[in-house]
Amino acid sequence: MVSDKREDQGDGYRPQGATDRRVRADAKRNIDALLEAAKVVFATSGVDAAVREIAEKAGVGVGTVYRHFPQRSDLIGAVFRREIDACADAASILAGKHEPFEALANWMQRYAAFIATKRGLAPALHSGHPTFEPLRAYFEQRVRPALRTLLKSAAAAGEVRTDVDADDLLGAVASLCMSSHNDGPDHARRMVALLVDGLRYGTKSSSARSSRSLR
Amino acid sequence: MVSDKREDQGDGYRPQGATDRRVRADAKRNIDALLEAAKVVFATSGVDAAVREIAEKAGVGVGTVYRHFPQRSDLIGAVFRREIDACADAASILAGKHEPFEALANWMQRYAAFIATKRGLAPALHSGHPTFEPLRAYFEQRVRPALRTLLKSAAAAGEVRTDVDADDLLGAVASLCMSSHNDGPDHARRMVALLVDGLRYGTKSSSARSSRSLR
Repeated sequence: MVSDKREDQGDGYRPQGATDRRVRADAKRNIDALLEAAKVVFATSGVDAAVREIAEKAGVGVGTVYRHFPQRSDLIGAVFRREIDACADAASILAGKHEPFEALANWMQRYAAFIATKRGLAPALHSGHPTFEPLRAYFEQRVRPALRTLLKSAAAAGEVRTDVDADDLLGAVASLCMSSHNDGPDHARRMVALLVDGLRYGTKSSSARSSRSLR
Repeated sequence: MVSDKREDQGDGYRPQGATDRRVRADAKRNIDALLEAAKVVFATSGVDAAVREIAEKAGVGVGTVYRHFPQRSDLIGAVFRREIDACADAASILAGKHEPFEALANWMQRYAAFIATKRGLAPALHSGHPTFEPLRAYFEQRVRPALRTLLKSAAAAGEVRTDVDADDLLGAVASLCMSSHNDGPDHARRMVALLVDGLRYGTKSSSARSSRSLR
């Protein structure tokens, strides 16, 4: 309300507070478009893709890329951090839309998609560059609790067994999705679904047939 | 009977046929001890372990090792081939001892142990050396039908679902056991058990609780 009053001053200039907000909103939109573009370009052309290609896809200038992310490692780190956030946030979104088991099963596939993105970034992430060091901790801080909450809800509803550890599952899905024995995303999707069905074997809901065929 | 008669000739010499058989039996025993020793030594000291270490463990001379396996690649290939045979043969042995599902579940863990051995040999197996080229085909020829038979029996008994492909499962277990996300053999064992429980989700036997806890 205060700023509304100041915008009515009639001097032809936006008051500083509103301008700052607009600039910040524009910058956030630019950064978001940039990170989305970088994610897609890294996935198709690898993490050494030309900055020009990323800038063009995002609809921003090359200078904007360098202003926000002086080093390539900054950009790669920011893309990965955004993917961690999106994956973790998906847990509560799915929990709001679905029954506990369905939320869990859907999230496990969402996590598999996250791992596929991580696979593309792996050459950089495993390079030992200091920019990437905090990301492991960030992943654990955000993704692990997300799965724990989903597991807990599904277990409380009697839909999954209670003797499976979230870390075990995260590691297993990562193994299924990143291995060279992986026969592509369809194979990974089927095997993650099989693992998730294993979670509900022996529960009250286990006499129901899996809703989706594995073929 | 013929050879028994010849052994009664009283000239102080074993007849040639019996000697050949004895030599062949001795050689087979030597080779078997050698391959078992090589397997263990490769697993602990890597595939570049000293031939002397392998010979000592097998209780044979170094010359015996070189006589049977002139090149290190011959020895590595023979170790791997023997492991493939043992893993494939385990399927019918387990099928003879257990109910179909138990045979399948036990074999999947046996296959996981095979993969752990394969992991140790991987640096050699993936070196592109021509000795190892036929082993992929040999693996598929022996191990794939072994699992198919077990799956078919368990499906016929109504104990596992019918929409899972043997190759998918072999790949998934290999992924779970060989990945860097693998937290050791216990983690792999638990996750293979979970995958196997997924196989029986939705079948008539699925209301029974898994006999083994995953913890």
